[in-house]
Amino acid sequence: MKHQEALTQYLAAFVTGLVHAGIKDVVISPGSRSTPLAMLMAAHTDLRIYMNIDERSAGFFALGLAKASRKPVALLCTSGTAAANYYPAVVEASLSRIPLIVLTADRPHELRNVGAPQAIDQIHLYGHHVRWFTDMALPEEGRAQANYAETFAVRAVKEATGLPKGPVHLNFPFREPLIPILNPNPFSQQRPPLLIENGRLLLPIESIKKLAEEWQTIEKGLIVCGPIDELGFSESVQNLAEKLGFPILADPLSQLRSNVVTDNHVIDSYDAILKSEKAVEQLKPELIIRFGDMPVSKPLSLFVKNLQDLQYVIVDGGAGWREPNHMATTMINSDEAIFCDDLAAQILESKKSKWLKMWLEMDVIAKDAISTYMVPSEELEEGKAVFELAKLLPEESTVFVGNSMPIRDMDTFFHKNKSNIRVMANRGANGIDGVVSSALGAAVHERPLFLVIGDLSFFHDMNGLLAAKLHKLNINIILLNNDGGGIFSYLPQAKEPKYFELLYGTPTGLNYEHAVQMYHGQYTKVFDWEGFKLAILEAVSHEGLNVIEIPTDRAKNLESHREMWQRVSREINNYLQDVE
Amino acid sequence: MKHQEALTQYLAAFVTGLVHAGIKDVVISPGSRSTPLAMLMAAHTDLRIYMNIDERSAGFFALGLAKASRKPVALLCTSGTAAANYYPAVVEASLSRIPLIVLTADRPHELRNVGAPQAIDQIHLYGHHVRWFTDMALPEEGRAQANYAETFAVRAVKEATGLPKGPVHLNFPFREPLIPILNPNPFSQQRPPLLIENGRLLLPIESIKKLAEEWQTIEKGLIVCGPIDELGFSESVQNLAEKLGFPILADPLSQLRSNVVTDNHVIDSYDAILKSEKAVEQLKPELIIRFGDMPVSKPLSLFVKNLQDLQYVIVDGGAGWREPNHMATTMINSDEAIFCDDLAAQILESKKSKWLKMWLEMDVIAKDAISTYMVPSEELEEGKAVFELAKLLPEESTVFVGNSMPIRDMDTFFHKNKSNIRVMANRGANGIDGVVSSALGAAVHERPLFLVIGDLSFFHDMNGLLAAKLHKLNINIILLNNDGGGIFSYLPQAKEPKYFELLYGTPTGLNYEHAVQMYHGQYTKVFDWEGFKLAILEAVSHEGLNVIEIPTDRAKNLESHREMWQRVSREINNYLQDVE
Repeated sequence: MKHQEALTQYLAAFVTGLVHAGIKDVVISPGSRSTPLAMLMAAHTDLRIYMNIDERSAGFFALGLAKASRKPVALLCTSGTAAANYYPAVVEASLSRIPLIVLTADRPHELRNVGAPQAIDQIHLYGHHVRWFTDMALPEEGRAQANYAETFAVRAVKEATGLPKGPVHLNFPFREPLIPILNPNPFSQQRPPLLIENGRLLLPIESIKKLAEEWQTIEKGLIVCGPIDELGFSESVQNLAEKLGFPILADPLSQLRSNVVTDNHVIDSYDAILKSEKAVEQLKPELIIRFGDMPVSKPLSLFVKNLQDLQYVIVDGGAGWREPNHMATTMINSDEAIFCDDLAAQILESKKSKWLKMWLEMDVIAKDAISTYMVPSEELEEGKAVFELAKLLPEESTVFVGNSMPIRDMDTFFHKNKSNIRVMANRGANGIDGVVSSALGAAVHERPLFLVIGDLSFFHDMNGLLAAKLHKLNINIILLNNDGGGIFSYLPQAKEPKYFELLYGTPTGLNYEHAVQMYHGQYTKVFDWEGFKLAILEAVSHEGLNVIEIPTDRAKNLESHREMWQRVSREINNYLQDVE
Repeated sequence: MKHQEALTQYLAAFVTGLVHAGIKDVVISPGSRSTPLAMLMAAHTDLRIYMNIDERSAGFFALGLAKASRKPVALLCTSGTAAANYYPAVVEASLSRIPLIVLTADRPHELRNVGAPQAIDQIHLYGHHVRWFTDMALPEEGRAQANYAETFAVRAVKEATGLPKGPVHLNFPFREPLIPILNPNPFSQQRPPLLIENGRLLLPIESIKKLAEEWQTIEKGLIVCGPIDELGFSESVQNLAEKLGFPILADPLSQLRSNVVTDNHVIDSYDAILKSEKAVEQLKPELIIRFGDMPVSKPLSLFVKNLQDLQYVIVDGGAGWREPNHMATTMINSDEAIFCDDLAAQILESKKSKWLKMWLEMDVIAKDAISTYMVPSEELEEGKAVFELAKLLPEESTVFVGNSMPIRDMDTFFHKNKSNIRVMANRGANGIDGVVSSALGAAVHERPLFLVIGDLSFFHDMNGLLAAKLHKLNINIILLNNDGGGIFSYLPQAKEPKYFELLYGTPTGLNYEHAVQMYHGQYTKVFDWEGFKLAILEAVSHEGLNVIEIPTDRAKNLESHREMWQRVSREINNYLQDVE
């Protein structure tokens, strides 16, 4: 009994620490070795437990939960390859700066590296992809050891929510017996809680003043907002843009397209605009200030890379290094919203400029061209699905966007609005894996939630759908099914017909209605745009898993996208001709 | 064009090296960055390409292929989290000593750690879980660089097939454009191939003589064979057992139960026998010689741990350290079959002993008790499914066994025979992940193939089923569906009813018929043993994916197993009473 008492005291202290540090959601995968932590977590009334059988899906489910709640989430699994299944989600969390507390049960030291069952080398299992790793001591009795456990739980959260945020990994060796003592209540508070106060990075006022002075004199400035989801940032950056008279090129994941304070700065069709060679030639900003991660737009990235004499400023509150173009001239480590506020406070009057006017006019022209092309199209194709969805989304809804084509279509077709729609995606490593689970994790906190996803990505994480059934989550999945790897049609590989279908097209020929039925979901196959509209309108009030499939054709998608972009370029060229 | 010529020459040399080193099967997941290697591999007429969309399944598919063919298999994926999805299979391959050549495409150096899309830190991505890692140079022209690439392909295979075998990881940075030149044929041989000759570990003859001399004098010796699948070993160890007069306790994965040269040494019901306390008390071997990995039987492991004055010899041709009991008295690094042959050659006459006779009699008694209990049972339960299957398996067939309960049932109910049935499982880390894919990889080389698997393990790797459809593989899956984590019912956790179903039972309530339909498979639900028999008999000639589901009940399974073991113990106790 001594053993079980020690186990209970030590781990109850750890769980108490997690709760004190703000953990509310825990995603657990079934297993034996993890029993003591699993039972104590289940017994703590302040923790919500989400069981998830497939650890890969569990990892991404936790990621989505943390993303939506903007809070750290804990993960727990047993020893062995179970823990290795978290790796993709850990890598994504590291790159997209999502705080995950990864807890893995392990066999005790005497059973490591000796061929014991379910024992793998879990020390530094996630390599450089976690902010912090520690191999915990075996549970031992005594207040000192309990203090250590409680403190390390809080520390784990501190490391995960520091700069930049990210995953941490704590490995717990446990000896048998594994059952803790749940009666009497093991969570009797023994010491004052350890609190975390995380500071933010701020520039000294002299630096702010100097930048404000310099930047006010610049006519041709651009603010670029990539993926960023910090509360308050939208308003702050729009305020700064107004003061500086700069357009904001707003990625769909910048949360700026849908929190438009004023219509006068946000540009959302720059991806289409910058496909015009004339635009690239004529629009030469002197200054770009970038917030957030790299935007999805490739034309924008190419545009930046080819600019000369550019002042290129990257502002990063997480103090990372996210600049693959090697064009930066200033790296500013500062909280983004505070930076905008402090800077704006130094500028007394808002500026209007010809440069801004031109961008706004091009934005209207590009979107008109896109609309004129899209509206009459009857063809079932992916771009139009996102185009239509954008018009139908209810206020306060959330869109989770798959990688590969959906995020690019979102970039093209999701235009600025005041509906307060939150847009999320896994843009750390841009993987097609784990997207279903991430969206379902987000669905715990966000509703109504729409997931826009391609068939390969849907296939990759089909196991994730179980969470919808087990946890009674509401999700509407817009499944863009071109039966294979649609994005590859856009690449030069498509010109090599010999191996194209084998290596890239990879048609699966699967009827996903079966999968949806298995998970007790509702399935609707769309045959025309009227049907799509009805399905989306119905979806808003639908409970549970709802899959709306749009069968599309890879070749036609490609053709239609190309034609549309040509039209936009033509219109933009005409406009710029007149401006000259 | 210079770039593409250099790319082609460098990578054609690499692919040539792989082929020279014996690679025949390559498992590729679709992606853009991996294009140059994927296309060159597809263009090489000596390589068979298996596309697999989900990299986790791809990794396990390659593992199964390598296991069945006893040859190294190459894996290729694109950059990003795709590569992280291989991790569970890499870990399993490392522990179960399966040679995998993991090739990951990467972004070039200037796009690493700077927030570039699809770029993660792939350097040492698999940590200590690979035998060798190298970050390859960027493709460059010239014979010297081609020689390096070709040599490193061969070296990769050497490292993967050395002692002990295992996975290796080569990371390839590629710059765009990514398309190699396939015309003219890029594989014009330029240099004599680099060959690998792998030696085996042998003991000096003096050591062999000394051991033979000592061991001949021992009456109470045991040979324990855990999982091992080396050609020729079965015959050699049986020959040695005959000379020494020792019983062979043969794990179902030792390949000894089905390659019985003589009925007189192989004991297969020791797991049941050693559940009797009387047996544990009375049977005190002086010497145990173990070959292969740790056997699945827990009673055997406990038996060994509690013996005193035991000479415990571990023979390992891979020179590893697989001894979690810390009871070994001699670690012998030697090829297992040669060790047996050399030792047997030193012993002139075969020995018969009372000890051996007693083990053989107990073996018959235990199996009679098992049969007497199982034959009349009408209940659909897991043990009986394996018991019946064992009787129905056609000669020369292969059984892939899932972890958790199926492998334990296989241990209890798959008895010795002369049908040359090959038994495989993933017993490196004993994970329930990747089992479907591993079995399908094995099905490329083995047929007819039967996979015995529980529902959670089936669920975990359901995506693996796509390989059956895409590659037209034949597999018969015996799905033991107790709707959740059946094995946990055997653990002390089952006595904590409050959290048991939440944390361990984890019923999914899924009807897997939908999944089977999605993959165009045949599905049969079994309602009685007659139906099961018919389904298995039909399965033998079935093409494609065939799933035979047996719905079972966790509580009844537990009860039935316990009752059966009690009966066996009773019979064994009676026998030992008489012997005393």
